[in-house]
Amino acid sequence: MKPVKVGIIGGTGYTGMELLRILSAHPHATAEVITSRSEAGRKVVDLFPSLHGHCDLLFSDPAKANLEQCDVVFSAAPNGVAMTHAAELLNAGVKMIDLSADFRIKDLETWEQWYGMSHQCPDLVEVAVYGLPEVNREQIRTAKLIANPGCYPTCIQLGFLPLIEHGLVELDSLIADAKSGVSGAGRNAGLGTAFCEVSDSFKAYSVSGHRHLPEIRQGLELASKSEIELVFTPHLLPIVRGLFATLYARLNHAGMELSEQEIGELFSARYQNEYFVQVLPPGSNPDTRSVRGSNHCLLAVHRPQSGKTVTVLAVEDNLVKGAAGQAIQNMNIMSGFPETAGLEQIAIVP
Amino acid sequence: MKPVKVGIIGGTGYTGMELLRILSAHPHATAEVITSRSEAGRKVVDLFPSLHGHCDLLFSDPAKANLEQCDVVFSAAPNGVAMTHAAELLNAGVKMIDLSADFRIKDLETWEQWYGMSHQCPDLVEVAVYGLPEVNREQIRTAKLIANPGCYPTCIQLGFLPLIEHGLVELDSLIADAKSGVSGAGRNAGLGTAFCEVSDSFKAYSVSGHRHLPEIRQGLELASKSEIELVFTPHLLPIVRGLFATLYARLNHAGMELSEQEIGELFSARYQNEYFVQVLPPGSNPDTRSVRGSNHCLLAVHRPQSGKTVTVLAVEDNLVKGAAGQAIQNMNIMSGFPETAGLEQIAIVP
Amino acid sequence: MKPVKVGIIGGTGYTGMELLRILSAHPHATAEVITSRSEAGRKVVDLFPSLHGHCDLLFSDPAKANLEQCDVVFSAAPNGVAMTHAAELLNAGVKMIDLSADFRIKDLETWEQWYGMSHQCPDLVEVAVYGLPEVNREQIRTAKLIANPGCYPTCIQLGFLPLIEHGLVELDSLIADAKSGVSGAGRNAGLGTAFCEVSDSFKAYSVSGHRHLPEIRQGLELASKSEIELVFTPHLLPIVRGLFATLYARLNHAGMELSEQEIGELFSARYQNEYFVQVLPPGSNPDTRSVRGSNHCLLAVHRPQSGKTVTVLAVEDNLVKGAAGQAIQNMNIMSGFPETAGLEQIAIVP
Amino acid sequence: MKPVKVGIIGGTGYTGMELLRILSAHPHATAEVITSRSEAGRKVVDLFPSLHGHCDLLFSDPAKANLEQCDVVFSAAPNGVAMTHAAELLNAGVKMIDLSADFRIKDLETWEQWYGMSHQCPDLVEVAVYGLPEVNREQIRTAKLIANPGCYPTCIQLGFLPLIEHGLVELDSLIADAKSGVSGAGRNAGLGTAFCEVSDSFKAYSVSGHRHLPEIRQGLELASKSEIELVFTPHLLPIVRGLFATLYARLNHAGMELSEQEIGELFSARYQNEYFVQVLPPGSNPDTRSVRGSNHCLLAVHRPQSGKTVTVLAVEDNLVKGAAGQAIQNMNIMSGFPETAGLEQIAIVP
Repeated sequence: MKPVKVGIIGGTGYTGMELLRILSAHPHATAEVITSRSEAGRKVVDLFPSLHGHCDLLFSDPAKANLEQCDVVFSAAPNGVAMTHAAELLNAGVKMIDLSADFRIKDLETWEQWYGMSHQCPDLVEVAVYGLPEVNREQIRTAKLIANPGCYPTCIQLGFLPLIEHGLVELDSLIADAKSGVSGAGRNAGLGTAFCEVSDSFKAYSVSGHRHLPEIRQGLELASKSEIELVFTPHLLPIVRGLFATLYARLNHAGMELSEQEIGELFSARYQNEYFVQVLPPGSNPDTRSVRGSNHCLLAVHRPQSGKTVTVLAVEDNLVKGAAGQAIQNMNIMSGFPETAGLEQIAIVP
Repeated sequence: MKPVKVGIIGGTGYTGMELLRILSAHPHATAEVITSRSEAGRKVVDLFPSLHGHCDLLFSDPAKANLEQCDVVFSAAPNGVAMTHAAELLNAGVKMIDLSADFRIKDLETWEQWYGMSHQCPDLVEVAVYGLPEVNREQIRTAKLIANPGCYPTCIQLGFLPLIEHGLVELDSLIADAKSGVSGAGRNAGLGTAFCEVSDSFKAYSVSGHRHLPEIRQGLELASKSEIELVFTPHLLPIVRGLFATLYARLNHAGMELSEQEIGELFSARYQNEYFVQVLPPGSNPDTRSVRGSNHCLLAVHRPQSGKTVTVLAVEDNLVKGAAGQAIQNMNIMSGFPETAGLEQIAIVP
Repeated sequence: MKPVKVGIIGGTGYTGMELLRILSAHPHATAEVITSRSEAGRKVVDLFPSLHGHCDLLFSDPAKANLEQCDVVFSAAPNGVAMTHAAELLNAGVKMIDLSADFRIKDLETWEQWYGMSHQCPDLVEVAVYGLPEVNREQIRTAKLIANPGCYPTCIQLGFLPLIEHGLVELDSLIADAKSGVSGAGRNAGLGTAFCEVSDSFKAYSVSGHRHLPEIRQGLELASKSEIELVFTPHLLPIVRGLFATLYARLNHAGMELSEQEIGELFSARYQNEYFVQVLPPGSNPDTRSVRGSNHCLLAVHRPQSGKTVTVLAVEDNLVKGAAGQAIQNMNIMSGFPETAGLEQIAIVP
Repeated sequence: MKPVKVGIIGGTGYTGMELLRILSAHPHATAEVITSRSEAGRKVVDLFPSLHGHCDLLFSDPAKANLEQCDVVFSAAPNGVAMTHAAELLNAGVKMIDLSADFRIKDLETWEQWYGMSHQCPDLVEVAVYGLPEVNREQIRTAKLIANPGCYPTCIQLGFLPLIEHGLVELDSLIADAKSGVSGAGRNAGLGTAFCEVSDSFKAYSVSGHRHLPEIRQGLELASKSEIELVFTPHLLPIVRGLFATLYARLNHAGMELSEQEIGELFSARYQNEYFVQVLPPGSNPDTRSVRGSNHCLLAVHRPQSGKTVTVLAVEDNLVKGAAGQAIQNMNIMSGFPETAGLEQIAIVP
């Protein structure tokens, strides 16, 4: 296989760093360019000493960086940046995988309302493929522009999809009680993510509405082909990496016929060919550390007291399957590489 | 006010320790006896150096301890111990506040099923008053035996009660997604609560059924005067103290008429005379650290997207309002002391 | 005792918050004014919800705040602020306790070199009393202006002083290997104190020279009446509160004559009348949590393998004995209150 | 290269788990047998779900396990176990790498005194090679039995060796102030390592003498060819992985001639061919997370205020370079594999 040359826009955040970590061990891809407005000219390893010996790159000024020489460019910059680069790169024949939200929402009005800006290239929103391989693998294969899913949406969609695809639950009372590690907020200097404000504490945030809500809703409505009502409550965990979603859905008549075991089997069947989605035996209790640093999503199905509600536990590393790992998975699919290339690292436990 | 002499059974756990901490600053009560089978004869401060200068007691052998000289005895021992002491103490005119589950469930069969033992004194179960002051204050005033509520049940009942008492929600689809600090598991040497197994991770446990479920259901059914169906999912937070419950309920016709603001006002009205329950403005996001070491329960009401589901956030310190603090609050009520005596300590933040 | 009216300059940091927490329970003092440039007009409890029910104050604009009506003013503002307020307050008959470094170093040149600014009121540096009660109690009693010690200097001086006062150690090879919780860095939005940068990690910082070095050296040289050489290595602990200093000194001829037990007795004698310094039995291992929220400093003396080096372990809560608690202790001494007033709170463990 | 068959004795601890994690990605070695008395018959992935898809093994009863079919056996069992297996395995031509302390100390009397048992095979102690590749690479190459160094000794020796080998420091006043993550205590259910006892706190332990002291002393005395006096103070960090040693030594006449920069250059020269020891530029501040999951040891040299003391900061992951990673490194050397085989994983940051 011909190795691909990779560029990274906005490489000083945690997802940029994680892309570099994974690419360093990737057999068929090499990071060639990494941009940063603030760190241009500085060695990458000076900022990220853990990459010492694995990365010789310097950060480039985005205005001067020769991203068009790359085969694939990842954008790990904040929302609103990728859409200013996309047209140029695509025109130059470069494939783009955007880890921000710029191309995730098909409905422009919804996007502009939740993200508070006007979109720079609405036509490319149409072209973009939503990069959830477990749903869109075939489209990803030939895509030029990937909207890499958000961390919450990845985990929550993977957990709800089998229930919805099999028509087992009421669609007007879905609940996603989700908890994320602090790295989900990015590598920023904010009081809200300061150690003393977060450590040894726990809270919910954006309860009235989080930007990932329309993205999740869009995915679930595509699967259900009807409107859904979802309550999505994000919480901030005092851990670095890890996302845990506890999903609740009321079983409908069809669903009430099935035991916990049977529902679990539907999940297993749904994901039997998915290397990165592991359905645990019914009644299991996955923890976030079991995927720390790995690209796996773990799912466990419960139907407590054989009652009306099915509970799904879904776990991922928000920086890997929830961001950089999934982006590399998409690159592998687009490039014809084995989907697991560079992504077989085992979680660091304990 | 005549000071009360206090005894503590099983004082080597975190709730015993917390009782001593609060009692040390209590103006009208003094710890006189504290028992421990394993530590009999040892100074309390040798085990708990933070009490140095505030506690001269030695642990007594429970077989020899003169608990009958006390006015009030707290049992902070594991489930199954208090029921072997209760009759004798009550006969000797000693009031008892049991922090274990021995007297919490009125239905004996249910209790024996969930706790896996047969009850030693079923008659006292009838006599015992469930010590949730915000519900049972008048009965507590004259009680001889208090079943002090569990940590999850305190928080979850306080959060659901206004909705149920006003008949605003469907009773067959209540969901309590609850997260507890590790101290809720007690002061034990177990692999499951070892630092390396818990730190920087997160998981659910007892998803199929936790012992606090029947206790919560009993309280909510008393309020609703009908059967309820509740899904209760406990999770283990990598923090020491703090319990956070995210409660979900489907609004019924009556409930759908009310805005988030109006529902919040019903909460405020319900708890307006409750010093230890603080209803935050609608849309608030309390964190667990805001009650670290204090006896407060914080509540915030949300109705996301003005949808069908109301979300209540409820926060407490599991060792204080969820255990020792509430026990002292009950003692204060039973003794005619100001309900806040010894309990005005401000949370330690950060 | 006549209650004192307290003002606080720069009250939005962790030490300001901690002053308010302690003052709320102080029997003889009341916070009357609290200033903040950025939060003027806002309720204090909006910023610090844990103070709800204990503090009715609003933040005042420092330019308009009537600090001169106060009896005592604490400055909890960053370095360089107190020196702009001191003269005016002292002239108005207000006593000032400065928690910053403005008045700690008597040698102006040294101060200006380490703090990188020129001093606004050199004459007041001479007047200021260094507020370490265990050394300067008599001077504090009549002081108008207190330089409240830094967190590291408090712990490190208290640990070294008995060795130096008794002339037991070589003065040219003192080592203070100190570890501080993150709250020592203040309530700031910086990447260096972000949760994801600090949690589950550990590092040294300012190894080549930290601002607290000249302050510690000044105190130890006053005690030894000769020059000392001290290596001071600060480290950042992934905990919120707590400071731990491991102190090493080579025993001189006189010191080599003494056993661990005998050295421990000299420590006990030195601090026998000091309520807030607790000398543990020789060989003890204090932990930082044993003083979380309390004003105590714990000391333990070791002489490993009866060798040439004595090791002292010194522990405090950096926000209490290392900042706000010690400031209140100074206020108590200056006001003729019992030295422990408002400071008897027991540590929160676990 | 012919792949080696690996056996692991006592595989249910953190070092056993870490051996499996590393071996799973090793190009030339495969785990074939893993023993556990308590878990015999159970699937490894049931205990360690993070290995799912990477390990098909079942735990074997040590009495029945066919360890003699292996080429190399790692013993990850507690102290005292390896010495009961060693003779048999060596006689069968199997190479053994012992991660416990059984073969680390050449002086039997010292070993028996510190480890409190009598040695079962003193003759093999003589034969065993101390597995610190940066010191003993040539002997390791042909060894049959490796005593894999302890976590503290690895880091502390690597940090002191250049100073001692160049004769720059006084040997009677070495100080190692070391801080270890909790995983260093193993995968055990003990109150001392319980989350609530360790989290958000910090303390020293074994200050009067830790078992790793004689091992460190032995290594440094071999290098110095004279007696040394070392004070070694271990502390418990509230982190999972990571070991940080702050080393202090008084410069002698020769050492005083050298600047921080020059001492740093001697370190760089000493380790220039050592892939796993990275000497940072003088004045650097490494953190433990930069080696989380990697086999690197980072060193930084400081000479604060150009004074009499040189300070070395040394960092490793206690489970990797301090245990399992170093053991694999030894296996690679013994097997003629590239020394880095299986050990090139980049640290997980953040």
